[in-house]
Amino acid sequence: MIELLQKIVESTPGAKAAILMGFDGISVAQFVAPQDDELDVESMATELSFRFMELRTAAASLEMGSLSDIAIQAEYGTVLVRVLSEEYFVAVLLERTGHFGKGRWVLRSTARALAAQL
Amino acid sequence: MIELLQKIVESTPGAKAAILMGFDGISVAQFVAPQDDELDVESMATELSFRFMELRTAAASLEMGSLSDIAIQAEYGTVLVRVLSEEYFVAVLLERTGHFGKGRWVLRSTARALAAQL
Repeated sequence: MIELLQKIVESTPGAKAAILMGFDGISVAQFVAPQDDELDVESMATELSFRFMELRTAAASLEMGSLSDIAIQAEYGTVLVRVLSEEYFVAVLLERTGHFGKGRWVLRSTARALAAQL
Repeated sequence: MIELLQKIVESTPGAKAAILMGFDGISVAQFVAPQDDELDVESMATELSFRFMELRTAAASLEMGSLSDIAIQAEYGTVLVRVLSEEYFVAVLLERTGHFGKGRWVLRSTARALAAQL
C-alpha cells in the first residue's frame, strides 16, 4: 500500500505527500517525499477529513449522489482527494505549482489498486 | 453581471448553471441554462456555501493560506468554485459528463471581471 502512495507522489510533479485515510480521520498509510519530511500530512488530512464528511453529506442531500472527488486549491498548496469507499479516501498534497491535472489522473488510476488492499 | 454568468455557462460544455454568491449563502446573481430551468441552483449553492466556509477556515488553520478554488465531483454532477473575495464566490454546476478542465479555465478567466462588478 505504501508503494502505491509512493508511486502517486513520484508520478505527480509537485506532489509532497499522499495519504490513505478513513473518513473518521484515522490514517491507514502515508508517504511523504524525502525533501518534505517535516510535513505533518496526517494532522492536515485529519482536519480536512471532517470537512469532507460534511461535503459528502451535503452532496447526498442535494441529490448529487455519491461524492467521488474533491479538490481544494489555496495560496500555498493544493489537496486532491479521491473517495475509495464509504469509509476511505486517498489524498495527495501538491505544492502551489504542482501539476493538478496529472495529480487527478494518477489518483484515479491508482484508486482501484488501493481500494483492493483495504 | 448576468451576462458574465451566461458566458461561463455557454462557454463550458455540460454546464447547467452559474451563480455568484456570498459566503453567507445569499445569491447575488445567477444564470441557468434554458434546458435546465427547473434547477434550483440557489438552494444548492446556499447549502454548499456553508461547507465552503468551513473548508476555508480549515485551510487557513492548516497554513495553506487563502482558498482560491474548490471542485467537487459526484455521481450526478460537478461543482466548480472560484473564490472572488473574502465575501463572494462564483460557482458553476456541470453535468457528470461536463468538461471539468474547460470549466475551471472559464471560471478563472471570468473571475476578475466578476470581481470588478462587486
